[in-house]
Amino acid sequence: MTRQAPYPLNTWYVACTPDEIDNKPLGRTICNKPVVFFRGDEGRVAAMDDFCPHRGAPLSLGFVCDGKLVCGYHGLEMNCSGKCDSMPGQRVRGFPSVRTYPVEERYGFIWIWPGDSDKADTSLIPVLEWADNPEWAYGGGLYHIGCEYRLMIDNLMDLTHETYVHASSIGQPEIEEAAPDTNVNGDEVVTRREMENIPAPPFWQAALRGNGLADDVPVDRWQICRFTPPSHVLIEVGVAHAGNGGAKAPADKKASSIVVDFITPESDTSIWYFWGMARNFKPEDQALTDKIREGQGKIFEEDLEMLEAQQRNLLRYPDRQLLKLNIDGGGVQARRIIDRILSEEREATRVEASA
Amino acid sequence: MTRQAPYPLNTWYVACTPDEIDNKPLGRTICNKPVVFFRGDEGRVAAMDDFCPHRGAPLSLGFVCDGKLVCGYHGLEMNCSGKCDSMPGQRVRGFPSVRTYPVEERYGFIWIWPGDSDKADTSLIPVLEWADNPEWAYGGGLYHIGCEYRLMIDNLMDLTHETYVHASSIGQPEIEEAAPDTNVNGDEVVTRREMENIPAPPFWQAALRGNGLADDVPVDRWQICRFTPPSHVLIEVGVAHAGNGGAKAPADKKASSIVVDFITPESDTSIWYFWGMARNFKPEDQALTDKIREGQGKIFEEDLEMLEAQQRNLLRYPDRQLLKLNIDGGGVQARRIIDRILSEEREATRVEASA
Amino acid sequence: MTRQAPYPLNTWYVACTPDEIDNKPLGRTICNKPVVFFRGDEGRVAAMDDFCPHRGAPLSLGFVCDGKLVCGYHGLEMNCSGKCDSMPGQRVRGFPSVRTYPVEERYGFIWIWPGDSDKADTSLIPVLEWADNPEWAYGGGLYHIGCEYRLMIDNLMDLTHETYVHASSIGQPEIEEAAPDTNVNGDEVVTRREMENIPAPPFWQAALRGNGLADDVPVDRWQICRFTPPSHVLIEVGVAHAGNGGAKAPADKKASSIVVDFITPESDTSIWYFWGMARNFKPEDQALTDKIREGQGKIFEEDLEMLEAQQRNLLRYPDRQLLKLNIDGGGVQARRIIDRILSEEREATRVEASA
Repeated sequence: MTRQAPYPLNTWYVACTPDEIDNKPLGRTICNKPVVFFRGDEGRVAAMDDFCPHRGAPLSLGFVCDGKLVCGYHGLEMNCSGKCDSMPGQRVRGFPSVRTYPVEERYGFIWIWPGDSDKADTSLIPVLEWADNPEWAYGGGLYHIGCEYRLMIDNLMDLTHETYVHASSIGQPEIEEAAPDTNVNGDEVVTRREMENIPAPPFWQAALRGNGLADDVPVDRWQICRFTPPSHVLIEVGVAHAGNGGAKAPADKKASSIVVDFITPESDTSIWYFWGMARNFKPEDQALTDKIREGQGKIFEEDLEMLEAQQRNLLRYPDRQLLKLNIDGGGVQARRIIDRILSEEREATRVEASA
Repeated sequence: MTRQAPYPLNTWYVACTPDEIDNKPLGRTICNKPVVFFRGDEGRVAAMDDFCPHRGAPLSLGFVCDGKLVCGYHGLEMNCSGKCDSMPGQRVRGFPSVRTYPVEERYGFIWIWPGDSDKADTSLIPVLEWADNPEWAYGGGLYHIGCEYRLMIDNLMDLTHETYVHASSIGQPEIEEAAPDTNVNGDEVVTRREMENIPAPPFWQAALRGNGLADDVPVDRWQICRFTPPSHVLIEVGVAHAGNGGAKAPADKKASSIVVDFITPESDTSIWYFWGMARNFKPEDQALTDKIREGQGKIFEEDLEMLEAQQRNLLRYPDRQLLKLNIDGGGVQARRIIDRILSEEREATRVEASA
Repeated sequence: MTRQAPYPLNTWYVACTPDEIDNKPLGRTICNKPVVFFRGDEGRVAAMDDFCPHRGAPLSLGFVCDGKLVCGYHGLEMNCSGKCDSMPGQRVRGFPSVRTYPVEERYGFIWIWPGDSDKADTSLIPVLEWADNPEWAYGGGLYHIGCEYRLMIDNLMDLTHETYVHASSIGQPEIEEAAPDTNVNGDEVVTRREMENIPAPPFWQAALRGNGLADDVPVDRWQICRFTPPSHVLIEVGVAHAGNGGAKAPADKKASSIVVDFITPESDTSIWYFWGMARNFKPEDQALTDKIREGQGKIFEEDLEMLEAQQRNLLRYPDRQLLKLNIDGGGVQARRIIDRILSEEREATRVEASA
């Protein structure tokens, strides 16, 4: 029997962003499967095994022509259904098809369902209310990190690490003095932390200024981390001038945004990490969007070395038990939900195999 | 029992070119064996295990002195027969010999026989009529490629890929419109393709100009690929002004040459690829030789990424069946001949072992 | 049962030099164990597993604060005993300790005992009479080399290689003409070589000049290599104006020093190589110390390529027997002592396991 992957398969992951498939196919390994993404007929996104049925060349080294993906080795043309439509000088009727993957372009991302195609349901893609909304602006990026996806979930569900890893930007000692509170609602895990009447750290001072607010007065700060399966973490963050209700303060008293984290397994020990920030102040200010993205990119880059070193340590000592403190509650609860989903997938596979 | 290598061993491969052993030994792994090549007595080439019998240092890190290979670690001197002739302060009579390999310098290449020495027969080295011939000029180079040797044979026996991989130099759509014709003559596989009354692609336009011919008139083009075991592919290529008999046109109506490909396994999944071009027009024009070599080097470099990516794909999915189309006939037939030779080598080993 | 490591564990190795832990922790793998070194309370050196008990992050990515090692991920503070002293917002009483290693700062080095802590005895650290002695000066450095530690011992116990590897500095043909003499005294192996009335090679000419002596007269040269377990090699080297008693010549007739080599296994096939030179002439001349270190660094760098290539060759042919010549006597005897110690450690483990 095949070993079960350590991540859910019958679910939607972010595979890439639209700019990555402008005018050319993209080869990217998702959940240990080499996949090629391209825009086919009428610009619709398609995804299939990155393996030409002719000689095994990666289709992603080819090009797109008239909505077909043309193999760059000998010219076999694949349509969006994984069928070979034509090949110069050949009858292609009997050519084997390649496996396609359900994909959907939504909210500025290309989503992929790496599991059973017939279970794919686009209504299961999480709703991003800030996306495609003129009152919000979004900027983000992509990092490749050599760690398993759950280490990144842990990282994002316990923002205590900001004080150490991001000391010069968003970290401040007041974070760890405020105990977090974790709740589970169905498949959602929410870890909430509130800090009152504290100074704003540099990143938030800049955001206050960006929103035309004083940056040198005490603030109330909040962090509300929301995990949903398989590995999405959206974090409401912000500061308000102190005493105005914190997260509920009126718009002209606060700077707030949503930290966006889509974590897609590449392999058992590496991820594609799509990070970004959505904000609902000055959405039309592209320079501010760029500045925030640049700042966030630098901050999130600080996690890479730590996560990869942590992964190497865990691979070397696979049997060591780790601590589960209150600050780890978000990650612990998220892992429980993932474990339940993995167990359900295992059971479904067992039932299908015996049917 | 030792696993049989996937390439013939009792055969001649190109190991290196003479310039690579000018004044110094060369260490190169051939058929998974680390070998050191050097010029010994009277300038004759010698090859032996690249492993000093004293402490296991690679002999290729040493130097040549008076026809002996001197180990660069402690000064043991090996003669061309693999015997230690002397070592300062030591009696060397009882020193073990190292394995030598039959080698032969011919046609501007150093050839090696990696199998049983007593089966080596220099009359089996392929005859290269254009070599050492003043009416011909030759220029070539060497690439290291991370793919098994048969993928390179496939590549060269199916030039359909030129249209895709080499679109800007030698590729043109007319190639794939002309079905190739494959014939087997004993151990030789010949795949022939002829295209009539077509425009010349850029590389051949330059060759026509190089030969003092108009480059803007219709041409007949030909490609005759000849495989001989273990992995030599010589390809007669050329263009003639249309209607003059194609490959048989008189010298003043055509530009033609022989693409030379010697493929030597380094390991099961990597090769030393000796490529070049022999031409029988303007052989004295060294600047033209250099220009052609530079052009060919760039074109052949375009295959590297594709071949290495194809190899990675095949290693990931070792059980996937590939298509065998008419254009693959040359490679398919070549693989049959290689399989037969491997089977013969296996049988011979079995008989010797039981004798 | 766990495979025994190929190096002794109940012994002192050099782990690092004091400058490497100035103001920051140092992560270094010693005998296959990732260890973090830092200065704790009152500047005393501490060493422990480089693995935070909270989430497995390497402690070496953290920082030192008030004699505690603070994890750079979530702020857990370790004291020198491997106990967590505090963590913001947490009760740490029940936190598991991490393994510490006996360490000792002595003679300008940090020494580590990677085996059983309760067997560690600082009186077993070798006595370095030249260290902390105003009549001597020391300069040295550190190389990381991809070879097992015994290959480096062999290298240092057979200086014949100087003629080949270090031909332009300390090598000269007279070395290999003088047969070495190897003696074993308990756990010490001494290989001695003396050369009379020879020219001084360039490195020693410079040393003679550095000591205010003529460099163009015949000299007597000596090399006395002393191995002590587990892998320390101290070599008395020098030249004296010929006819003055060689190593026993009065100080104003010679230039002599001690080549210092501490070899610490990183893994089964890589080492941390601490090299240096201690001299008792002009000890106050820092410029001379620097010049000698630079020269020695370049010379010792010449061994790296050879040792790493030798290691690759031995890994490829693990069963090949090597020669054991008279010049190899020092290494052969050192390996015998190491084998005996490994056998004793194995036996002790067996007895403890069955007790």
